[in-house]
Amino acid sequence: MSLKIGVIGVGMIGQDHIRRLTTVLAGAQVVAVSDVNPEQAEAVAARIGARTYPTGEALIEAHEVDAVLVTSWGPTHAKYVLAAIVARKPVFCEKPLAETVEECEAVLDAETKLGRRLVQVGFMRRFDAQYRAMKQTVEAGAIGAPLIFQSGHRNPSVPGYYTANNALTDTAVHDIDTARFLLDDEPIAISVKSPRKNSRGGGLADPLLTLMEMRTGALVAIETSVNIAYGYDIRGEIIGETGVVTLAESNNVVVKTNGGFSGHVPVDWKERFGAAFDTEFREWIAAASDGGAAGPSAWDGYVATVATTTGVKAIATGARELITLRERPALYA
Amino acid sequence: MSLKIGVIGVGMIGQDHIRRLTTVLAGAQVVAVSDVNPEQAEAVAARIGARTYPTGEALIEAHEVDAVLVTSWGPTHAKYVLAAIVARKPVFCEKPLAETVEECEAVLDAETKLGRRLVQVGFMRRFDAQYRAMKQTVEAGAIGAPLIFQSGHRNPSVPGYYTANNALTDTAVHDIDTARFLLDDEPIAISVKSPRKNSRGGGLADPLLTLMEMRTGALVAIETSVNIAYGYDIRGEIIGETGVVTLAESNNVVVKTNGGFSGHVPVDWKERFGAAFDTEFREWIAAASDGGAAGPSAWDGYVATVATTTGVKAIATGARELITLRERPALYA
Amino acid sequence: MSLKIGVIGVGMIGQDHIRRLTTVLAGAQVVAVSDVNPEQAEAVAARIGARTYPTGEALIEAHEVDAVLVTSWGPTHAKYVLAAIVARKPVFCEKPLAETVEECEAVLDAETKLGRRLVQVGFMRRFDAQYRAMKQTVEAGAIGAPLIFQSGHRNPSVPGYYTANNALTDTAVHDIDTARFLLDDEPIAISVKSPRKNSRGGGLADPLLTLMEMRTGALVAIETSVNIAYGYDIRGEIIGETGVVTLAESNNVVVKTNGGFSGHVPVDWKERFGAAFDTEFREWIAAASDGGAAGPSAWDGYVATVATTTGVKAIATGARELITLRERPALYA
Amino acid sequence: MSLKIGVIGVGMIGQDHIRRLTTVLAGAQVVAVSDVNPEQAEAVAARIGARTYPTGEALIEAHEVDAVLVTSWGPTHAKYVLAAIVARKPVFCEKPLAETVEECEAVLDAETKLGRRLVQVGFMRRFDAQYRAMKQTVEAGAIGAPLIFQSGHRNPSVPGYYTANNALTDTAVHDIDTARFLLDDEPIAISVKSPRKNSRGGGLADPLLTLMEMRTGALVAIETSVNIAYGYDIRGEIIGETGVVTLAESNNVVVKTNGGFSGHVPVDWKERFGAAFDTEFREWIAAASDGGAAGPSAWDGYVATVATTTGVKAIATGARELITLRERPALYA
Repeated sequence: MSLKIGVIGVGMIGQDHIRRLTTVLAGAQVVAVSDVNPEQAEAVAARIGARTYPTGEALIEAHEVDAVLVTSWGPTHAKYVLAAIVARKPVFCEKPLAETVEECEAVLDAETKLGRRLVQVGFMRRFDAQYRAMKQTVEAGAIGAPLIFQSGHRNPSVPGYYTANNALTDTAVHDIDTARFLLDDEPIAISVKSPRKNSRGGGLADPLLTLMEMRTGALVAIETSVNIAYGYDIRGEIIGETGVVTLAESNNVVVKTNGGFSGHVPVDWKERFGAAFDTEFREWIAAASDGGAAGPSAWDGYVATVATTTGVKAIATGARELITLRERPALYA
Repeated sequence: MSLKIGVIGVGMIGQDHIRRLTTVLAGAQVVAVSDVNPEQAEAVAARIGARTYPTGEALIEAHEVDAVLVTSWGPTHAKYVLAAIVARKPVFCEKPLAETVEECEAVLDAETKLGRRLVQVGFMRRFDAQYRAMKQTVEAGAIGAPLIFQSGHRNPSVPGYYTANNALTDTAVHDIDTARFLLDDEPIAISVKSPRKNSRGGGLADPLLTLMEMRTGALVAIETSVNIAYGYDIRGEIIGETGVVTLAESNNVVVKTNGGFSGHVPVDWKERFGAAFDTEFREWIAAASDGGAAGPSAWDGYVATVATTTGVKAIATGARELITLRERPALYA
Repeated sequence: MSLKIGVIGVGMIGQDHIRRLTTVLAGAQVVAVSDVNPEQAEAVAARIGARTYPTGEALIEAHEVDAVLVTSWGPTHAKYVLAAIVARKPVFCEKPLAETVEECEAVLDAETKLGRRLVQVGFMRRFDAQYRAMKQTVEAGAIGAPLIFQSGHRNPSVPGYYTANNALTDTAVHDIDTARFLLDDEPIAISVKSPRKNSRGGGLADPLLTLMEMRTGALVAIETSVNIAYGYDIRGEIIGETGVVTLAESNNVVVKTNGGFSGHVPVDWKERFGAAFDTEFREWIAAASDGGAAGPSAWDGYVATVATTTGVKAIATGARELITLRERPALYA
Repeated sequence: MSLKIGVIGVGMIGQDHIRRLTTVLAGAQVVAVSDVNPEQAEAVAARIGARTYPTGEALIEAHEVDAVLVTSWGPTHAKYVLAAIVARKPVFCEKPLAETVEECEAVLDAETKLGRRLVQVGFMRRFDAQYRAMKQTVEAGAIGAPLIFQSGHRNPSVPGYYTANNALTDTAVHDIDTARFLLDDEPIAISVKSPRKNSRGGGLADPLLTLMEMRTGALVAIETSVNIAYGYDIRGEIIGETGVVTLAESNNVVVKTNGGFSGHVPVDWKERFGAAFDTEFREWIAAASDGGAAGPSAWDGYVATVATTTGVKAIATGARELITLRERPALYA
């Protein structure tokens, strides 16, 4: 009865998802793996009793594979997703759906032509209990119409190759998707400001303040701090017409010693979003077992790539850049 | 590879555990069920594709059953646990291990004679992230030697048959076990005070203040409020020589509207301890797959029953009653 | 127009009150001082331009003195308060009103004979914004009838001469008065438990758990920790029939660094109750300017002394001791 | 010994300050008042036993007046401050110091020519315990160099005549001054964004997001929400290189009822900043009694007016506008 999954790309994130699918969650088994590095694929496959495939395409076509998980190198995402659509198999694709807008559009075209959703994109924050409570609060009308969303992402450090563009495409992409999710709104323009640089980041322009304008007129102000040392801390507040809703601090205990009180801040995304990843895959397993997908769609992946691509342009020009989206197909209504 | 589990007793709690074992967690399947009500057993078995057995004993002896989950009526717990020990099968027993001290002792005798642990008792708070952080804080020496543990259990309401004795045996039993877990200490005396009665509880003596004295001299003060309407709220604070550690509030978002801020309090044990139950069974599946048990032992079940039995006596006498424990077998060191 | 105050006893607390009356608050001036140590009196008087008097009685009788502040050694309080009543002058007496029940009763007799209030006792917590909000919450019916009040007093350390009896008469006396204030109730019995001793306190029985039973059946559980190192921390929670109300943490900023968040805990009573002392004297100045008193009365001072005296007896006997109060005169209704 | 103060302008704010100076704080008396409405002046003077003066200038020159408090209509502030400097009398001027940059410069010129500070401007947030703790945290180096300051001002509603320009000159002016105070930095540019309008404000552009760039490169992002209904809520967070510091919520009690916890948010500036006003005037009384001033100077008033004037221009142009300051005189170093 369990969903037979083939995994393309077994690097760090792929292996963590395999761990989750095989040792944490009910209802799934990983039967096939493929990787650009065949030895890596063999090693992982041996550990979990799966078969290896020479290519992602071969894995997708394999009869034993019910559903596909794409955790390969970013530039290869789109081709595997497209192949899965051709094979009519549910596919979970880690973000980004594709690195170029054109590839995202090809996925939209293929899926809309098919006429039903097969693609789920890995925006795990949509499965986080805090963000879900936040969305519920807004939708219940508790704070009136939302006017501003302040979103903050902070993590201790980034590797040397990380650039300001990565701050948009790898990091703020989550805030951008979350903003769309929480506000039920689409972006129309984006600009990026850079204050004095954090000296811990070498020459990196860090932090960034990204301002995104939404179709309804709501504003989204995103703080991205990627070398802030103290922890992995996700902040968010929506300011509405009559009230505000704020992500709570999520700690376990408060300790009082030496003249003060104190508590823990998460150290990394695994700690902060571990439960959200569990929920994300639990809902995907259920949906894929029914031949479909849950939560963030190819459309969400497309808008994220358009917005971050435009944001990268805004960094280069220093100006406010317009975000142009195609019309949303009815499939994603 | 997955652990084949037989479930004895498929009432509300049994069905919830079956749901967890079959649709939430990896590594287990429920292959056998038994219930005092055969129709109930048939219905549940049909839903999950399991076989039914006429008696718990027959289920325990079945070759297809690797491990046993006892969620039957309290007075029957001990006999099934004893049968599982005879069959040398790992057994998870919902609390209480047994309702009488004598039965608990029979389990201790059987297991110690066997010479290895097979029994795990369902004190799920030991798997809760907050309590684990609290224990870690104490063990790290952050607050000095613990002197007082203030524990509070509050839930909205109880059914009409619930008595003050239930407040000890069904409710405060968790605080008692948690105190032993957090303080690494054993109780030596117990007394119970009853303030004015909550008018919502009819004639029920509610709330109760239970004072438990520990071997080291630490004191445990337990507030048990079972008709407090506002929510399911578990409070705890350990006062040490140089500091204190307190369970944090565990909310998702804070909303500000109408002159105030506000947040959510859990509505029931499923919400408050859902993740702890997941962890409890995840660790049990892993341990039982290796033929053993994790976390709370038959010894913990025994002490809980001695303490609550003595507490019930203290309610009757209105006096401080001594808790007398046998010597702890090396198996439970 | 300002109230002319004479101060009897210019030790640490007396000087702090003089500072408050002369440099912080409007509406008062200190015109007279007296002290068992005449040189001390001279020094303080010179600093603020006041006159010295050889005895407290002489100061009370002085024509220039409108109102009297008694901050002398505890055993002398009653005689000065009685003299002030004879002189028909408003008198603020630091706690205790008197160290013996008999002296308290003499004050009650004198004041009730006079037929109007002149005496205010220094229970400053009644003027604290947090406690006032707590009382307001209870009186508004927000939590239903109060059933249990958990009160916690913690301070970093005490001098070597401090005994377990002091924990009642000097420290828990505040929790006892606060309980009466918040619950609008009177104590009928008291018992004291002592857990393992905090090793920081030498042989001192510290902490203490005091249980006070109230006339309505409500229970008051008082934790007194006087060597807890980490700070001056006052905790309180009232458990009602349908909800609870808790003193909030009162910090200024939260800092996140090094994997955690943290904030400040007050260091001493001056920090924690500074604003409450200001309010206490502001209200006294207003009331005394009209010839009367505000807030805690001689009756409150009397009950506190009866309760702490009985508590000291309970420490000695290890038993529950009954608190016997005279009937409350109509003056204090 | 008390400071004899003359008050120019006895409208709402003037009367509140008079109340504070006469009934709350030690060390001052209001001996003279003047108002554009002589009847109003008479009524207030009669109540407190002060003398009235036909003009502010006459009051300033009066021999009995030691120090001057200017709480008249904004456009008149500068002339009274200048007159006080001519008279060499300490002067407390409510914000703004002046509505035009030219007038502010005239004050700077007069005071620097005199060579010592006489002027204090009413930026009361600098005396707030929370902001002071925040500044102390930054100066202690606890969060590394400050990079971004997020400041939020929210109040329930504004009168019909309030315009978007007022959001800068009357409301965000406090955030601007606070930013300079906390970061010890000067602004160099400002821009203002306006999201969808709060429908509660008629046509008012509300909320506003103001971005101010500082000399060091730090960014200040100011949210101004003036019709947000729920309360008077001041938020602030400084993001540094290695940590953050956030204004704590300042509540008295937390109540748990009906499935949730809740607490109070201040209703207005009197509640939120009442203690800060007390401190502000206490420090002014002390400084003015010595012939000087404490805290925010004419320079601070000048920069605030330059920044808000430029901000008003930025609203009109929709562009980023440069803030040009004269060189800071040594007097204000």
